[in-house]
Amino acid sequence: DFRRALEEVQPAFGVSMDELQRCLVGGFIDYGERLERLVESGRLFREQVRTSERSPLMTLLIEGAPGSGKTALAAKLAMESDFPFIRLISPEQYVGFSEPAKVAAIARTFEDAYRSALSIIVLDNIERLLEYAPIGPRFSNVVVQTLLVLVKRVPPANRRLFIVATTSNSEVLDVLELRSAFQASLQTSWLLPEEIARVVRGSGFGFVSEKERNKAIEALSGKHLGVKKALMLLEMARDNSIAGKETGEPEENLVRLDRLLQVLADVT
Amino acid sequence: DFRRALEEVQPAFGVSMDELQRCLVGGFIDYGERLERLVESGRLFREQVRTSERSPLMTLLIEGAPGSGKTALAAKLAMESDFPFIRLISPEQYVGFSEPAKVAAIARTFEDAYRSALSIIVLDNIERLLEYAPIGPRFSNVVVQTLLVLVKRVPPANRRLFIVATTSNSEVLDVLELRSAFQASLQTSWLLPEEIARVVRGSGFGFVSEKERNKAIEALSGKHLGVKKALMLLEMARDNSIAGKETGEPEENLVRLDRLLQVLADVT
Amino acid sequence: DFRRALEEVQPAFGVSMDELQRCLVGGFIDYGERLERLVESGRLFREQVRTSERSPLMTLLIEGAPGSGKTALAAKLAMESDFPFIRLISPEQYVGFSEPAKVAAIARTFEDAYRSALSIIVLDNIERLLEYAPIGPRFSNVVVQTLLVLVKRVPPANRRLFIVATTSNSEVLDVLELRSAFQASLQTSWLLPEEIARVVRGSGFGFVSEKERNKAIEALSGKHLGVKKALMLLEMARDNSIAGKETGEPEENLVRLDRLLQVLADVT
Amino acid sequence: DFRRALEEVQPAFGVSMDELQRCLVGGFIDYGERLERLVESGRLFREQVRTSERSPLMTLLIEGAPGSGKTALAAKLAMESDFPFIRLISPEQYVGFSEPAKVAAIARTFEDAYRSALSIIVLDNIERLLEYAPIGPRFSNVVVQTLLVLVKRVPPANRRLFIVATTSNSEVLDVLELRSAFQASLQTSWLLPEEIARVVRGSGFGFVSEKERNKAIEALSGKHLGVKKALMLLEMARDNSIAGKETGEPEENLVRLDRLLQVLADVT
Amino acid sequence: DFRRALEEVQPAFGVSMDELQRCLVGGFIDYGERLERLVESGRLFREQVRTSERSPLMTLLIEGAPGSGKTALAAKLAMESDFPFIRLISPEQYVGFSEPAKVAAIARTFEDAYRSALSIIVLDNIERLLEYAPIGPRFSNVVVQTLLVLVKRVPPANRRLFIVATTSNSEVLDVLELRSAFQASLQTSWLLPEEIARVVRGSGFGFVSEKERNKAIEALSGKHLGVKKALMLLEMARDNSIAGKETGEPEENLVRLDRLLQVLADVT
Amino acid sequence: DFRRALEEVQPAFGVSMDELQRCLVGGFIDYGERLERLVESGRLFREQVRTSERSPLMTLLIEGAPGSGKTALAAKLAMESDFPFIRLISPEQYVGFSEPAKVAAIARTFEDAYRSALSIIVLDNIERLLEYAPIGPRFSNVVVQTLLVLVKRVPPANRRLFIVATTSNSEVLDVLELRSAFQASLQTSWLLPEEIARVVRGSGFGFVSEKERNKAIEALSGKHLGVKKALMLLEMARDNSIAGKETGEPEENLVRLDRLLQVLADVT
Ligand SMILES: Nc1ncnc2c1ncn2[C@@H]1O[C@H](COP(=O)(O)OP(=O)(O)OP(=O)(O)O)[C@@H](O)[C@H]1O
Ligand SMILES: Nc1ncnc2c1ncn2[C@@H]1O[C@H](COP(=O)(O)OP(=O)(O)OP(=O)(O)O)[C@@H](O)[C@H]1O
Ligand SMILES: Nc1ncnc2c1ncn2[C@@H]1O[C@H](COP(=O)(O)OP(=O)(O)OP(=O)(O)O)[C@@H](O)[C@H]1O
Ligand SMILES: Nc1ncnc2c1ncn2[C@@H]1O[C@H](COP(=O)(O)OP(=O)(O)OP(=O)(O)O)[C@@H](O)[C@H]1O
Ligand SMILES: Nc1ncnc2c1ncn2[C@@H]1O[C@H](COP(=O)(O)OP(=O)(O)OP(=O)(O)O)[C@@H](O)[C@H]1O
Ligand SMILES: Nc1ncnc2c1ncn2[C@@H]1O[C@H](COP(=O)(O)OP(=O)(O)OP(=O)(O)O)[C@@H](O)[C@H]1O
Ligand SMILES: [Mg+2]
Ligand SMILES: [Mg+2]
Ligand SMILES: [Mg+2]
Ligand SMILES: [Mg+2]
Ligand SMILES: [Mg+2]
Ligand SMILES: [Mg+2]
Repeated sequence: DFRRALEEVQPAFGVSMDELQRCLVGGFIDYGERLERLVESGRLFREQVRTSERSPLMTLLIEGAPGSGKTALAAKLAMESDFPFIRLISPEQYVGFSEPAKVAAIARTFEDAYRSALSIIVLDNIERLLEYAPIGPRFSNVVVQTLLVLVKRVPPANRRLFIVATTSNSEVLDVLELRSAFQASLQTSWLLPEEIARVVRGSGFGFVSEKERNKAIEALSGKHLGVKKALMLLEMARDNSIAGKETGEPEENLVRLDRLLQVLADVT
Repeated sequence: DFRRALEEVQPAFGVSMDELQRCLVGGFIDYGERLERLVESGRLFREQVRTSERSPLMTLLIEGAPGSGKTALAAKLAMESDFPFIRLISPEQYVGFSEPAKVAAIARTFEDAYRSALSIIVLDNIERLLEYAPIGPRFSNVVVQTLLVLVKRVPPANRRLFIVATTSNSEVLDVLELRSAFQASLQTSWLLPEEIARVVRGSGFGFVSEKERNKAIEALSGKHLGVKKALMLLEMARDNSIAGKETGEPEENLVRLDRLLQVLADVT
Repeated sequence: DFRRALEEVQPAFGVSMDELQRCLVGGFIDYGERLERLVESGRLFREQVRTSERSPLMTLLIEGAPGSGKTALAAKLAMESDFPFIRLISPEQYVGFSEPAKVAAIARTFEDAYRSALSIIVLDNIERLLEYAPIGPRFSNVVVQTLLVLVKRVPPANRRLFIVATTSNSEVLDVLELRSAFQASLQTSWLLPEEIARVVRGSGFGFVSEKERNKAIEALSGKHLGVKKALMLLEMARDNSIAGKETGEPEENLVRLDRLLQVLADVT
Repeated sequence: DFRRALEEVQPAFGVSMDELQRCLVGGFIDYGERLERLVESGRLFREQVRTSERSPLMTLLIEGAPGSGKTALAAKLAMESDFPFIRLISPEQYVGFSEPAKVAAIARTFEDAYRSALSIIVLDNIERLLEYAPIGPRFSNVVVQTLLVLVKRVPPANRRLFIVATTSNSEVLDVLELRSAFQASLQTSWLLPEEIARVVRGSGFGFVSEKERNKAIEALSGKHLGVKKALMLLEMARDNSIAGKETGEPEENLVRLDRLLQVLADVT
Repeated sequence: DFRRALEEVQPAFGVSMDELQRCLVGGFIDYGERLERLVESGRLFREQVRTSERSPLMTLLIEGAPGSGKTALAAKLAMESDFPFIRLISPEQYVGFSEPAKVAAIARTFEDAYRSALSIIVLDNIERLLEYAPIGPRFSNVVVQTLLVLVKRVPPANRRLFIVATTSNSEVLDVLELRSAFQASLQTSWLLPEEIARVVRGSGFGFVSEKERNKAIEALSGKHLGVKKALMLLEMARDNSIAGKETGEPEENLVRLDRLLQVLADVT
Repeated sequence: DFRRALEEVQPAFGVSMDELQRCLVGGFIDYGERLERLVESGRLFREQVRTSERSPLMTLLIEGAPGSGKTALAAKLAMESDFPFIRLISPEQYVGFSEPAKVAAIARTFEDAYRSALSIIVLDNIERLLEYAPIGPRFSNVVVQTLLVLVKRVPPANRRLFIVATTSNSEVLDVLELRSAFQASLQTSWLLPEEIARVVRGSGFGFVSEKERNKAIEALSGKHLGVKKALMLLEMARDNSIAGKETGEPEENLVRLDRLLQVLADVT
């Protein structure tokens, strides 16, 4: 059963669990069939590498709009596995790094993975890893070339590796021939109205009335929203003063519709 | 009440107060409803981060024409809070810095903020921080990438951060995908005629007659002016000789209409 | 006889055998006449250098789409020879290398080859060796110039060298005048339906029924596939659970048609 | 009275007087109302900074064609003031400087100015300071960014600064957003025929006859000339031999019309 | 007589003879009048520098398609002379050199030549010396500028220098103004059918029958071929097995027509 | 009288005489009125700087096609003067120099000149000094900026400087605003038929007959030729064998018409 599976995230032996856990601060809400299909596909690829004899390398790219839940999905696929080696490679780790230092750090992570029988590497936010800027355009070709090689390099004998990567700029990755360097790809997307409804209901936020909740869902449906921004908007419209006043638990997550509408106006 | 709130700027424990104070040399004049709406929105975002459990990061971009009062608004939002950690990141601090040194300094400020439970970082003049020049165009991609990451990095457990940034080139930030990296944005703008009238009256500058004052307001309304340039023009048209001659206090802020018109001709 | 020749890959005295062996993890399936023609041509060039007195240098470029079996063909031509010196030059060896270090390493390999009476150098994935990126476009001109010279440099007296190179971007090599620097070129290509059928049958994967196998062949024929991706798809659709359940050897390579169709949907 | 004011250039306490004096080798001829208006405006801005309490920074850009007298005007505004700190920042000082060294030297001059209660900085020839070349185009973005910041940086408490800059390429400064970084701008221009007449008469050069002088004025009026090139042409047409022959003082500045016409043909 | 002159290549006192000799591995076949005209012209220029008093520098550029025999012609002109100083400057010598190191090496060769009374410098493959790549395009401007100066620099008193250079990209040299820096130029070209016939006959390769030879000539005439590729094709079609089988001398150079046709298909 | 003046080149006290002398290896033939006008203009500018009190700097640019005699004219103007300080700045001096080293060397020459009361600097071949390449285009902006400043820098008190520069690419200098940085410019040009006749007659080369000489003049008139290439062609067509055979002096400079025509065909 999908829903039960979503709940039980099995801990993995190895590193990076804290960092990966932080990718799931908003939890993992089952908002519908489209999501379930993504999770199932991801699991199929992950499990295949575990038993395959001829393909010791499986590579999967999760591509979708900003805030559509890519990192959370990748983190979930990694964390729920029981692979002994799990590592996150994220742009946050390389702030201020020179190009050679960054490439060395990335390559070292792969070398570490090659020493474990069964490994997962999460390559988060590839367009940021390669420092892509649309003006110019500019990017670190050294990082591009390194990823092009590492993503296709077959691990040594008796080593298996699952690479799951994320990007919100798959057009650029396509032009750079980095997209087709992955064996498979999954697409996350803006939420459909019924999916927004499920996110609102599954999020733990309350409303004064069912009518307000429905109006909120309607208002949120008018925008291109991913699961990340939907949850953020609800959080921003939460009424702190009520929480402060009455301290009753359910109230502290009460969302005020007027606030939500105001916040929606200023959101980028 | 908005007006009272504007008056009482509460001092914050921490650093950067002097620098921030200098951003408000022209005071903070309540020139109308559009301004009040901006201040209220800014406060809402700031206060949300204080109590939020799920979103320990709130990021706000103030965008508007040169001299439209962006920096002053950001400084006000920071200074009136009682957050224990408040820092200004401004291009003035990095004159002559190499790119790595600048990135290191910016990153260190963020690391410092992550050590405080509740922090505000004012990122002033982003297009200057990233050294944007329209010819080329050129910019420091290292700074762009660093900001793209830092503006979205979730603080560690139990740390909350409010980032308020300013720019007068939001088109470029948009293309660089730095604008949408902020959760929300506020727009400052040229003053409307009635706003100019309120700025002139609230500025403390005197006129020989009410008629001259009205003519001055009319002259100023003919140009695209932000609050900064409006105050500068009045100051440039102030008659020093009168001040010197009579030393009566009101006269020292007397603006001469003929001078104002002359100065208007040379202003860029 | 071609088929027998394909089977018996004669070991060569010298280095790089392990690396070259890994290029043939999918074996070398005789999938038809077009392939046989390629192998024969390659062998003709290789053998000519062995006996030639006037042309101590023979250079061959294998060009074709990604995954069309270029590296495997080059590796086969090298490994089945009994040349005393065989070396692979591959981008994987230079991850994180600076341009001068990379050029030095490449040049050293050529110098080593010049010391042996009869040598083969496999230059794998030239567009990656020269770090080509379509955006810009960018590439390492130092590597380009080095290859342009090394590929045409006549070995010293009494030394013979066979260079076999691969690329999936022969347009770029053409523009860079690197393609015409080779004396001859061979083209690998997408598999034709009957070639896919031979790959499936020769691959060692089983199906529940002959009908499923035919349906699989039909499904694979609908895509532009090279031999590499065809074998990968079969491997990804292999049913691990069956293998786990019954442990009978034939079953462990059983491919499930429904899985194959699902995997086909996510493949890049 | 304007003319008297032009004559009496008051010496300033501080540095750079020699360098500034050399900017006025051709003297400062009152050639008409347009010039007088420029001088008056410049003085108004300069004097305002002296007494202003709210605007401790006044910035003025003098823009005009090559040789139209920009540097001389800026030097005059600086030298006739009695400001205790006066400095010239000129491209001539930085020949062969690296970008960081140049930026450091410029920044240091500003730091020095911030230590004086009342300062003037003359930023001569901005397009040259930032090494602008129309092919490319190229420029030192480090210098551009530094100037963008320094020209807007408010001096510390109780410090006042008047910046007067010159450029003959205000289009480029406009595109670089450096033009609008100045509070005001003045335009110098080609000389009108009556202005040329006044320059010739005020220059101290003699002619054989009034008729020759008029013909000379007419000839000069046919070209786009600024005051600098007008004075240079007269000097080039001066007859040395006469000076040598008769040693009478008036003759040594005698201009020959035929020479003037010849020189006009070769002038760029 | 031309033909006799071609035979007797007089050894020169000095260096580089080995390297130059290797440029003539295919011999020097007199394939017709067009060639004879080139050799005569080259000799005229070479001999003129020897006796000239007013032009101690003579510079000649040999330009033509790849493989049209440029290097061999330059080498011949150098080797058959009895100039005491002869040096080859070739891209092969600078693999992996940095730009400054390469320029230094080139300049040193010229300095050496200036020390000899009569010198020849062969500048082989100029477009490669300056690292030209059509994408970008890119090239080493330092090398371009160095060659532009060195090719026009008059040797010191009593020193004479003949520079003979080759290029297969005279368009680029033209744009770079490097072509017109040479005093004269000669053009090598694709072989005409009767020239191919003479190359085949003069090459020392045998055929089974006169009819096969004629068919071979016809086949070769269908392609754009220079002398270099024509000789290579014959060599590639030589039948090693026959040579091995019968060991009779004439047979070892027997070319098989079927092989020639096959090889022609794969040639770039 | 012009012709007499041309003959008597007065030696100057100072340096660079050898280098300048080498610029006149072909002598200085009076080939007509256009040349005389150039020499006169040049002298006028040179002499003016000597006596001028107000313009201690005179700058002259000689522009014209390659080989039109620019360097020789500049050298003549310098050498025939009796200025105590004369220096040649030529690209030949900076082969292999880094940009900073080159700029330093140029600036030092100017500093040296400022120490002499009366100086001449010959800036030969400006487009080469600034390493201009039409592809890109590329150039050394550091050198451009340095020249832009040095060419306009007024020497210190009591120092006078005459700068005479040459270029064959005045369009580029114009775009770079380096052309208009000079006060005046002179244009050299292709030779007219009657000028070619005078060059041939004044060159010292003999012909077998007057008829041959006329045919030679006619042949040379059909091409765009400057004085440099005209003299080179005559030298290349000189018959060495005759010189060797008869040793009579006039014969050693005998030009053969058939050779001249042949050489004309190969000239670039
Ligand atoms: N079903 C879900 N899928 C993904 N994220 C979910 C889901 N349910 C809840 N979330 C929460 O929503 C947020 C998704 O944000 P995430 O960082 O994964 O988006 P993203 O696409 O990676 O964004 P970005 O483009 O900024 O990198 C996370 O906080 C996650 O905990
Ligand atoms: N209501 C107001 N809002 C903003 N600024 C105000 C207001 N009232 C007075 N001021 C004064 O006006 C000036 C606004 O200038 P500020 O530097 O904030 O503009 P800016 O948009 O940041 O300009 P720039 O584009 O140059 O950075 C300050 O001196 C401030 O003290
Ligand atoms: N006849 C064959 N020719 C080539 N490869 C074959 C053949 N039969 C089986 N294979 C297997 O197919 C795979 C071909 O992959 P290979 O790496 O050679 O492709 P490629 O064109 O080099 O791919 P890429 O473009 O990614 O470099 C190898 O695993 C090889 O063992
Ligand atoms: N009224 C005047 N205004 C300006 N310059 C004058 C005036 N009268 C005389 N001069 C003289 O004219 C010359 C003006 O040259 P100046 O260097 O100021 O021109 P510029 O516009 O700065 O030139 P450039 O574009 O080359 O920098 C100076 O020598 C100055 O002494
Ligand atoms: N008449 C000839 N002219 C030139 N080369 C000849 C002639 N006869 C035989 N050869 C042989 O043909 C070959 C010509 O090749 P060469 O390297 O000179 O060509 P190239 O034009 O320099 O080629 P590339 O463009 O590759 O530099 C040499 O091996 C040479 O010995
Ligand atoms: N009247 C003349 N003017 C110039 N050069 C002359 C004259 N008469 C003879 N010559 C000779 O002609 C040659 C002119 O060459 P010069 O180097 O000056 O030309 P250039 O225009 O500088 O060429 P380049 O464009 O290659 O720099 C010199 O050798 C010089 O001695
Ligand atoms: Mg993400
Ligand atoms: Mg601001
Ligand atoms: Mg491959
Ligand atoms: Mg000036
Ligand atoms: Mg060659
Ligand atoms: Mg010259």
